[in-house]
Amino acid sequence: MSDPFFLPPSGTDLPRYAGVPSFMRLPYLAANDPKRAEVDIGIFGLPWDGATSNRPGARHGPRALRDASTMIREMNRATGQLPFQAANIADLGDVAMSPVDQDEALESAQAFVRGVLGQDILPFMVGGDHLCTLTVLRELRAARGEAFGLVLLDSHTDLYPPYFGGKTLTHGNPFRQAIEEGCLDPTRCVMAGMRGTSYNTSDFDYGAQKGVRILPIEECMERGWGSVMQVAREVVGDAPTYVSFDIDFVDPAFAPGTGTPEVGGPTSFEAISCVRALRGLDVIGADLVEVSPPFDNGGITSWLGASVMFELICAMQP
Amino acid sequence: MSDPFFLPPSGTDLPRYAGVPSFMRLPYLAANDPKRAEVDIGIFGLPWDGATSNRPGARHGPRALRDASTMIREMNRATGQLPFQAANIADLGDVAMSPVDQDEALESAQAFVRGVLGQDILPFMVGGDHLCTLTVLRELRAARGEAFGLVLLDSHTDLYPPYFGGKTLTHGNPFRQAIEEGCLDPTRCVMAGMRGTSYNTSDFDYGAQKGVRILPIEECMERGWGSVMQVAREVVGDAPTYVSFDIDFVDPAFAPGTGTPEVGGPTSFEAISCVRALRGLDVIGADLVEVSPPFDNGGITSWLGASVMFELICAMQP
Amino acid sequence: MSDPFFLPPSGTDLPRYAGVPSFMRLPYLAANDPKRAEVDIGIFGLPWDGATSNRPGARHGPRALRDASTMIREMNRATGQLPFQAANIADLGDVAMSPVDQDEALESAQAFVRGVLGQDILPFMVGGDHLCTLTVLRELRAARGEAFGLVLLDSHTDLYPPYFGGKTLTHGNPFRQAIEEGCLDPTRCVMAGMRGTSYNTSDFDYGAQKGVRILPIEECMERGWGSVMQVAREVVGDAPTYVSFDIDFVDPAFAPGTGTPEVGGPTSFEAISCVRALRGLDVIGADLVEVSPPFDNGGITSWLGASVMFELICAMQP
Amino acid sequence: MSDPFFLPPSGTDLPRYAGVPSFMRLPYLAANDPKRAEVDIGIFGLPWDGATSNRPGARHGPRALRDASTMIREMNRATGQLPFQAANIADLGDVAMSPVDQDEALESAQAFVRGVLGQDILPFMVGGDHLCTLTVLRELRAARGEAFGLVLLDSHTDLYPPYFGGKTLTHGNPFRQAIEEGCLDPTRCVMAGMRGTSYNTSDFDYGAQKGVRILPIEECMERGWGSVMQVAREVVGDAPTYVSFDIDFVDPAFAPGTGTPEVGGPTSFEAISCVRALRGLDVIGADLVEVSPPFDNGGITSWLGASVMFELICAMQP
Amino acid sequence: MSDPFFLPPSGTDLPRYAGVPSFMRLPYLAANDPKRAEVDIGIFGLPWDGATSNRPGARHGPRALRDASTMIREMNRATGQLPFQAANIADLGDVAMSPVDQDEALESAQAFVRGVLGQDILPFMVGGDHLCTLTVLRELRAARGEAFGLVLLDSHTDLYPPYFGGKTLTHGNPFRQAIEEGCLDPTRCVMAGMRGTSYNTSDFDYGAQKGVRILPIEECMERGWGSVMQVAREVVGDAPTYVSFDIDFVDPAFAPGTGTPEVGGPTSFEAISCVRALRGLDVIGADLVEVSPPFDNGGITSWLGASVMFELICAMQP
Amino acid sequence: MSDPFFLPPSGTDLPRYAGVPSFMRLPYLAANDPKRAEVDIGIFGLPWDGATSNRPGARHGPRALRDASTMIREMNRATGQLPFQAANIADLGDVAMSPVDQDEALESAQAFVRGVLGQDILPFMVGGDHLCTLTVLRELRAARGEAFGLVLLDSHTDLYPPYFGGKTLTHGNPFRQAIEEGCLDPTRCVMAGMRGTSYNTSDFDYGAQKGVRILPIEECMERGWGSVMQVAREVVGDAPTYVSFDIDFVDPAFAPGTGTPEVGGPTSFEAISCVRALRGLDVIGADLVEVSPPFDNGGITSWLGASVMFELICAMQP
Repeated sequence: MSDPFFLPPSGTDLPRYAGVPSFMRLPYLAANDPKRAEVDIGIFGLPWDGATSNRPGARHGPRALRDASTMIREMNRATGQLPFQAANIADLGDVAMSPVDQDEALESAQAFVRGVLGQDILPFMVGGDHLCTLTVLRELRAARGEAFGLVLLDSHTDLYPPYFGGKTLTHGNPFRQAIEEGCLDPTRCVMAGMRGTSYNTSDFDYGAQKGVRILPIEECMERGWGSVMQVAREVVGDAPTYVSFDIDFVDPAFAPGTGTPEVGGPTSFEAISCVRALRGLDVIGADLVEVSPPFDNGGITSWLGASVMFELICAMQP
Repeated sequence: MSDPFFLPPSGTDLPRYAGVPSFMRLPYLAANDPKRAEVDIGIFGLPWDGATSNRPGARHGPRALRDASTMIREMNRATGQLPFQAANIADLGDVAMSPVDQDEALESAQAFVRGVLGQDILPFMVGGDHLCTLTVLRELRAARGEAFGLVLLDSHTDLYPPYFGGKTLTHGNPFRQAIEEGCLDPTRCVMAGMRGTSYNTSDFDYGAQKGVRILPIEECMERGWGSVMQVAREVVGDAPTYVSFDIDFVDPAFAPGTGTPEVGGPTSFEAISCVRALRGLDVIGADLVEVSPPFDNGGITSWLGASVMFELICAMQP
Repeated sequence: MSDPFFLPPSGTDLPRYAGVPSFMRLPYLAANDPKRAEVDIGIFGLPWDGATSNRPGARHGPRALRDASTMIREMNRATGQLPFQAANIADLGDVAMSPVDQDEALESAQAFVRGVLGQDILPFMVGGDHLCTLTVLRELRAARGEAFGLVLLDSHTDLYPPYFGGKTLTHGNPFRQAIEEGCLDPTRCVMAGMRGTSYNTSDFDYGAQKGVRILPIEECMERGWGSVMQVAREVVGDAPTYVSFDIDFVDPAFAPGTGTPEVGGPTSFEAISCVRALRGLDVIGADLVEVSPPFDNGGITSWLGASVMFELICAMQP
Repeated sequence: MSDPFFLPPSGTDLPRYAGVPSFMRLPYLAANDPKRAEVDIGIFGLPWDGATSNRPGARHGPRALRDASTMIREMNRATGQLPFQAANIADLGDVAMSPVDQDEALESAQAFVRGVLGQDILPFMVGGDHLCTLTVLRELRAARGEAFGLVLLDSHTDLYPPYFGGKTLTHGNPFRQAIEEGCLDPTRCVMAGMRGTSYNTSDFDYGAQKGVRILPIEECMERGWGSVMQVAREVVGDAPTYVSFDIDFVDPAFAPGTGTPEVGGPTSFEAISCVRALRGLDVIGADLVEVSPPFDNGGITSWLGASVMFELICAMQP
Repeated sequence: MSDPFFLPPSGTDLPRYAGVPSFMRLPYLAANDPKRAEVDIGIFGLPWDGATSNRPGARHGPRALRDASTMIREMNRATGQLPFQAANIADLGDVAMSPVDQDEALESAQAFVRGVLGQDILPFMVGGDHLCTLTVLRELRAARGEAFGLVLLDSHTDLYPPYFGGKTLTHGNPFRQAIEEGCLDPTRCVMAGMRGTSYNTSDFDYGAQKGVRILPIEECMERGWGSVMQVAREVVGDAPTYVSFDIDFVDPAFAPGTGTPEVGGPTSFEAISCVRALRGLDVIGADLVEVSPPFDNGGITSWLGASVMFELICAMQP
Repeated sequence: MSDPFFLPPSGTDLPRYAGVPSFMRLPYLAANDPKRAEVDIGIFGLPWDGATSNRPGARHGPRALRDASTMIREMNRATGQLPFQAANIADLGDVAMSPVDQDEALESAQAFVRGVLGQDILPFMVGGDHLCTLTVLRELRAARGEAFGLVLLDSHTDLYPPYFGGKTLTHGNPFRQAIEEGCLDPTRCVMAGMRGTSYNTSDFDYGAQKGVRILPIEECMERGWGSVMQVAREVVGDAPTYVSFDIDFVDPAFAPGTGTPEVGGPTSFEAISCVRALRGLDVIGADLVEVSPPFDNGGITSWLGASVMFELICAMQP
């Protein structure tokens, strides 16, 4: 049973719209807070969208997700889990990432993640754009000393070669970079939900050549999502695995507030069932990225994002 | 065949956006109007959200639903029904409920419903938040002298014990209250679509103990909605039954404008097919609640709500 | 291989939000541009909503679709097609249609279409409301000398008799008019997705009497969309066929920005799978109509419309 | 003292958001209602925008203004007037104007206005676009047998020659048409607030030649609005005068929901002070036009429009 | 010089959109935090709108104002003040007020304020609707043992007698109640900006009879705001004074997000100049109320509210 | 008289919402178009916001301003100017600036501007964020060989030292940088409208030390805008001068769609009068920056921006 310190206030004691909004109303622990030593899972924001090739705004994601997530209650009705009792979970704050200097921004994020991993905290990152994920992957690789697997739920593979002249990292290529840098074991990587127009086949070709298992949306819909997730579990197996959830995985009707929406995606029910199917894997870190509040309508994307965060946190627990 | 007085003007005679907006362009009959004596089904608004625990705004629901419902035409294409010819239906106006005094508000609503029932009008209530339903249930119980059944389409059971210190009624507990007060026969109550995080299992436990049949969303999706509604029909049988439709039953992509949205719900097609499956039951009253216009986007929630109202009215007819 | 002149700039060379927005970033060719002689498929706008019976705004459709369509990339991932390489496609601009004089507006549009057909360009029309389609059908009939088939994806049949006193054309009757004028061979017309309340059965009755195959949404959902499209292909066969896509075919959660939304429709995935199933037909023209930007939320309707346009253009190619 | 029948319910008896929304909660009297005989001032809607050259939507104006106007209370604090006690005022409903046939639409409106004038009701018209005003001017001319004066508060003169090829009436030329048809005495016409880019000087030239007094915004700001209205009163004198208020008179920050906004206009305080300065004139009719709800934000334009309507009605009273 | 603990992080160290949002990025101190003993000015939220007679939503005010206020920088450019250095200021969190029980809600708020005053903290309350102010006035009265003065910037006097049947408190009468209870010395009360329609003159009459100085908007505009504030200073003099700022004081173009907007108000520049003119008074408490985020557009009301909060805090300092 | 090639189509020939949207419907001339040789004033977009410290989105500015500017007509009513006849003006397109590499982005912009200046085209730049201005200043300096003057209308001085660790350029310091690099003669620089909270006085101090004339908003309001612009004209005199207009100069009620709004600014009328007062200066280039469409409401900011662009272009003409 968790330390009562780590239990969020109930909506019947403090209305959900009241109070300073931390992730899921969990305690906020600044960098030097001694309670950090007791944290099992740490949620932190990387409020940065400097690698976004199209519509910006994901820098505002952590703020909006904190706000929406105050509507999350204690229990996962579907699974019976009480995640905030089963583990000590905390809001570790946001990283100060420069909006105008990519190198500095990435280094700040990596330094922060290094600290989190150094305290044996399971990292849950809230983006920010998808390049933010690379900072977590790099530090996990450094901390663990070996490559690990990946489950990616997304409408894009993010396996493209560098855009815009070749010298820069963007939100279109973190996983290619992570494979190249040895963070990910490509044969234990699985990606589902890919769709939309593409520049060419270079991302799929790269994946195929490296052994990444890619399930385009047509295959997902044909198989059904239960089967998709069975494939995913087979690909990653029992070994350490990272889970990344790009909100643009879900159809824009359910998640309009994102930078690069692609029509023809799964519903929110399907998306959540995918997340639940991850339970039991050896998840060493996870993220929810690409929520872009300026393009959200009435907050439905943030609320979906907060709901997915909750399910991911449950899936990270036994 | 209905009295021509009760036929709404066609959109080809008076454009749908024109005219003083009553529900479905039906005649508005004030409390003392003698034509009330001829009414079969009476639609009225309870513009009140004083029991809302999170995002308010459902007090503006009847206004927005009147506006949207002017887009409803004469015929139900799917069933071939002409509901405004088959029965005399009218807009009975809204009840003056105090926004700042719950006791007074509930009593005003009950007095109004008493009058409606006293004229042998089948009540169709438009909320307002879900506590408004309790006023109708109480008066139906008083008028009929015995408990009746319930079909609830919702994402919440509304079977929670009192919130916020125990003394007050909220939109989280009308059905528990109605069972306790003997309005509802719990063994003839069925609830479908439940999902989202929960405080605990006290609502499910209470339902189980009393004999309420609850179908969480996972069971609904597993069974398919046809089977769900077959279960519902079996539970309520041929005896008198009330139908309550909370707009948050539908996924927030389809119904963002509500106070307590829960992701992972049915589509609008599924929702409407559920309503159609109610036809033939002995429906003694119905409602559509929790449309909150300030959180709606471009009016899609109101339009869905108006469409559901039309289908409910058709389902109440032979 | 297409003339490089006709290739849109890549998003990695010029960010998608940059530049004067033409349809899919294709070259804009004014009426007198000699490059028009080389065009295979010509996209043009009919920015007109003068026949709209309810919510106006479709006149702003071409502008919003140009903007959204700049997010379209080169390749159709699902089919492997590179449509801008396989054919010379261009933006032919918009027609100057009087917003205040219906006769003049329709004549302007027909004159423009006549010019397009005279240059052997396959027409792709972007509406505007659905009456705009009639101008294309009339000129195709004139140019080809015989009636042709139709695939209509829509929530309405648009087979109603004239509204508002009988003298005028509206967006509720273009296909009845086109059958009456001998443009369409009714026995080779198929319409899928019909739903929502109706005035009466006169449109279905007319269709039945003429031999039009109408698939209401209930039949579509029952059959599945694969079967629906098989029916469609059987009805139109190998002979010349026009394809019309009304954005209100899709559920309002996916396409709120339209004049006459009807709840209970297909998802964006289903809609796109329908379009893909058209490939291989002898398509002699196509359109995407009824996107109404003033009622759109965060542009999701425009983005869906642009995605459908891309799929339609691919389906028009071998 | 007015008949109590004509007093709107107080917000303390029936909350303002409750009830079927008529203009200012006044009684709605259908065409054949005998109470019409007792009406002093009749408010009616012309929900039509068929003459709009740019952004449509004013057809939805009367609906939105009815909704917003339910927030109006009994007393004009600034003047001490109780307008609903001083005169019998009623909502006469909307005219069924064809959205697709201009001739028919204008004739319907004129027939309605004829009936209103025939009952000696002072007409207050709610648009709709500005061409709607012409129908009132024509019937006032017919009923009175002589030309009358005009006060126009607007950002445009609406004195342009016919647009779009010369044959049609648009919202850019009602007052030129009204002068040509002898409805208005140009030497008793005054127009204030003109600004924005123009096609040319033909409207100003026409006004100058006919003797219309035009005050461009620069002159208004230089003089101050008190002086502007003094000029206006001098121009129209004691003789019969019509007052037309185009909501685009006010700056778009205060009134974004309109078809042809022009920046650099007066504030809402200035606009209202102009209306108050009209009191004491011999006002024979008035209107509020060009509120376009699809372009409104959070309803501020409708609320301003409803407030202006109230002030105009007060100004029409001694 | 303030304790560095109380200095908010600079936007150049941590981007403004990053981090858990407290008021103006000041430290959040929970009820039992020992640092509270060092606080000079305490900002807290009363997230409650249970006394709202029209459009609800002010319960979401504190959350939105925390978010917007993170854009506030260190220095007041106009006055040269560095308020966070001149005093120890902190975010004391929100009070848990029952949304469904008015008595309980008010008592919770008063208990909280009692605690704040007991620690000699100058209270700055963030609403919530205007009835929230009464809880602060009552506790200030209790703590100080005598009545005090008031400066109210508002479009309403809030001096109405009880609404809705007479038994209840609403946001239309806190100041009448406060005078009746002896909290306020009416002869040292000044109210400016009053406008809009009214029920009757009972509020003005009551004020006049008690000696409250009311400046309707017409007088304010006539005098100029400098003179208005000079009057205000004369009325309250050097003795203890409370300042209440209702965001509906400002015109709805600048502050659309509020429950009871009234057109014809001051600009944001004028509003801020009024606040600055308060400097030097003996301010014993202040508030900013009635920001209603569901009716806000793009957050301009929240941003204005946060800016006003900053100016008020500066005005409370020497 | 201008070449007819350069005249935009009238709204009476082609409705304003029709056609591919170029700036003010002027001809779009790609980089290699020979007609560029005849251009007098060239409008181009720098769709880049990579130096934005707070809310991003200005990268979408040129697209939105092209769209809104199609509502601009031929004549400046206030001045009688016909700017499109008096000079050959064209849309030169947007520069391909990398969203993820600041150095590359700035160099691309400078190369483009170099080309424009090399063709003796007077540059009118449309941002993008305010750092974009630096690229124009640098190239003007290089082309002219000497420093020049500046009129800046803005709510910020943009004279801050580098943010975020000192190594990078941001939208907070372009003018300091331009002074340091010798582009601007600080003694001929004037800045008006400064307001809002500040980090400290370092920007004002720097300006004072260098001789820049800064007029904070309080001084502007005190003097009146006519006097402000007289000061501005005196500071810059007859020598070459650049004009930069940041849309956040105007109050957020008029211009909500910007990254760093500051309340308490001028109205749109005042803003436009300031621009008109520039006529007759030796303007060697101008810009309109910081319009951020994702934060705009109903497009009022874009429309104001387009109106300001038109006035600036007029002011650049004799």
